[in-house]
This record gives sequence, structure tokens and C-alpha cells, in this order.
Amino acid sequence: MSEFKNVTVQKAANIYHDGQVTSRTLFLEDGTKVTLGIMLPGVYEFNTEGPETMEILSGDLKVLLPGSEIWQEIKGAETFHVPGNSKFALEVFELTDYCCSYPIM
Amino acid sequence: MSEFKNVTVQKAANIYHDGQVTSRTLFLEDGTKVTLGIMLPGVYEFNTEGPETMEILSGDLKVLLPGSEIWQEIKGAETFHVPGNSKFALEVFELTDYCCSYPIM
Repeated sequence: MSEFKNVTVQKAANIYHDGQVTSRTLFLEDGTKVTLGIMLPGVYEFNTEGPETMEILSGDLKVLLPGSEIWQEIKGAETFHVPGNSKFALEVFELTDYCCSYPIM
Repeated sequence: MSEFKNVTVQKAANIYHDGQVTSRTLFLEDGTKVTLGIMLPGVYEFNTEGPETMEILSGDLKVLLPGSEIWQEIKGAETFHVPGNSKFALEVFELTDYCCSYPIM
């Protein structure tokens, strides 16, 4: 799916880590929250409230998922899931374009 | 207006100037194209095809509009218009969040 239809988009950007990570928030028709974002090179840690599905659209990075001691390499498109009430770390080597979904519980 | 409703959003980012400028494209119900973007510090020149309305949501920058020799300072929220088939230059001092509209001719 290359586009989302019938969505609500918040105008102002979400800005994290001094602008190295930015995103826009949208809400799908069924209420699912999605953020479309860009991560510039750097090392980041994110905390989750609910579970998240992270779809990497393009990029070059490593991810350390909760409970794992192995950094997983991602080049290009890949999807990973993060449980709620946890944290994950990313090392981004090249500009990374992502789509993060927050399923309704 | 802090959000757009009933829009179509393209998933993949638009990436310019080595990722210093990135945006997402959306289409409003009436067909108007809008891009929501982030500019990191730098100097940029953009060419226009049709006219553009550039709404700065937040930022610190200067803009040189076509036909002008004066760089106009913008801090915070401001809107400017650029004619079609022209070009404009921006010097961005701090991360700038913008909303650019491409009115239907």
C-alpha cells in the first residue's frame, strides 16, 4: 500500500532528538494512529506505551529489540514489532524513512 | 486549522538536498496538493512550476522571493506566496516546519 486514503493528518511535525527524528501523525478511518517519519544518522532509544509495528520504508540501520542482545541489521524495506511498555534502540547509518503503526488495543 | 481531514497521504517521503529537506505529500478532498515538510539548517533554492503558498509553522529563516533583492526574515509562523515558473531561496537557521500548498489552477 503506497498511500493512505480518508485519513486525518496533524499539520505540525513531531520533533525528537533535536530534529534528528521527525514525523507526522495521521489517524486512519478505523482510528489507528500512524506516524510517518524520518530518522537521520544517530543512535536513538525509544520507549513504547502500547505495541508498535515499525515498517522501515528505506534506510540502513540496526535495531535492538527488547529481550534481545543481538542488533538486527536492516537495509531497505523491513518490518518489526515492538511490545508495549518496553523500549528499543536504533543505530541509523543512513537517512531512514519509516511508517510506525500503533494498533488499537 | 491544526489538521487536515479526509485526505490521501503518500506513504514514502520526498527527500531533497541529501535529506536536509524532507516532506510528505497529501491531497485534500478538492484535489489540492499539500506537502508537510521539515527543513534543517542550510541554504536552499527551489524552482516552482505552479504558484505555491508556503506556510511556515515554526522556524527561523530568511527567504528571498523572486523579483526581490531583500531577504525577508521569518521567525515563528508566517505565510508567503511564490509565483509559478519562478524560483526562491531560503536560508534556514533553525529546524523549520512548513506546510506548502499548490493551488489547483
